[in-house]
Amino acid sequence: MENLEELKTYLRRYAAERDWDQFHSPKNLSMALSVEASELVECFQWLTEAQSENLTEQQLRAVTDEIADVQVYLVRMADKLGIDILSAVQQKILKNEVKYPAEKVRGSSKKYTEYE
Amino acid sequence: MENLEELKTYLRRYAAERDWDQFHSPKNLSMALSVEASELVECFQWLTEAQSENLTEQQLRAVTDEIADVQVYLVRMADKLGIDILSAVQQKILKNEVKYPAEKVRGSSKKYTEYE
Amino acid sequence: MENLEELKTYLRRYAAERDWDQFHSPKNLSMALSVEASELVECFQWLTEAQSENLTEQQLRAVTDEIADVQVYLVRMADKLGIDILSAVQQKILKNEVKYPAEKVRGSSKKYTEYE
Amino acid sequence: MENLEELKTYLRRYAAERDWDQFHSPKNLSMALSVEASELVECFQWLTEAQSENLTEQQLRAVTDEIADVQVYLVRMADKLGIDILSAVQQKILKNEVKYPAEKVRGSSKKYTEYE
Repeated sequence: MENLEELKTYLRRYAAERDWDQFHSPKNLSMALSVEASELVECFQWLTEAQSENLTEQQLRAVTDEIADVQVYLVRMADKLGIDILSAVQQKILKNEVKYPAEKVRGSSKKYTEYE
Repeated sequence: MENLEELKTYLRRYAAERDWDQFHSPKNLSMALSVEASELVECFQWLTEAQSENLTEQQLRAVTDEIADVQVYLVRMADKLGIDILSAVQQKILKNEVKYPAEKVRGSSKKYTEYE
Repeated sequence: MENLEELKTYLRRYAAERDWDQFHSPKNLSMALSVEASELVECFQWLTEAQSENLTEQQLRAVTDEIADVQVYLVRMADKLGIDILSAVQQKILKNEVKYPAEKVRGSSKKYTEYE
Repeated sequence: MENLEELKTYLRRYAAERDWDQFHSPKNLSMALSVEASELVECFQWLTEAQSENLTEQQLRAVTDEIADVQVYLVRMADKLGIDILSAVQQKILKNEVKYPAEKVRGSSKKYTEYE
């Protein structure tokens, strides 16, 4: 798996071979994606922030698996909708550069929580 | 933005320039990621599955933005934990090939909902 | 358990007896609540809407358990923040009555998805 | 609004008056519920645990609204499935008392994170 493009192709074949395309409407995939994201939250819910920066090997393995699951469903959903993820990111980043210019952010008394 | 590696590097600089690293503990990033995943769910919550496969241009634009946000936080979190996303996916895929072999899945009376 | 008030009292004692209050910051409880909400989503993610209205006995039992979990964490979080849930609902309902008056909604060509 | 039963009745009429029942399949309601739960997470995502215990008035108002939204969708979903929330909670609590007996939990070296 060298890049997202290869992952997309792999996942297409994977679903086709199992006849699972019928379940993969964008609506359903959005649900599956958010479920995986929550399994990631579950890994961290009772940890302090400091603990979340120093995971045990077992915790790290669990987190790694969940990150993979989120990526898989994200690529699958984007493919189903004909969206190129890296282009989407590129566009979003340009918007954010305009919205939150670094030089204004650093000098500002505005709180981080007010930016989101 | 050619690949996830470039995105990782970009996001590091983006956070550093704004002094936002202090907020990006893995715990907090898991929360932000799941919030973005839910914004994706929000795009689909009142649509039928068929409608979710035929988005209007406006709906598609909103979905594209949310997909970008999920990818951004996923790369950011993986970076903070020293996880290589594509390797993580590779490992997970191998596990799934063993767990759900195509030839057994196709001939099976087992329901899709029982696989997850 | 006759009402939310009794549940609140029960959960206070339950946590105190186990020395679990230390983990129940509102931040952590919001994470736990969303994880439980996602477990509910997981019950429905591959079902059609029609299937979701005709659950098997086993599916219904799973859903019932998850609904209980969401209610438990919601009461716990509200208690920690001194929020009375039913008063909060009352206030929100009044806002919504003003925002979405029935007589205007019924006659409207506006789509449901545009109200949220 | 004196109790969950009254809220259920109110929400039935509210949806009927607006002809919104058609959108309220359990599948869709699970999505809406999780979206509201994530809006609660959003209130806390960049706060420290200590800050989450000392919200500003404005933050508390936002949290109160989101808690109301979660409760509303939870009651709506339970109603659609014929589930009595307080009975569901009662049953779940009994299971948890058996699973996590207070006297064993207190004396135990087991971590909280291992209980979930």
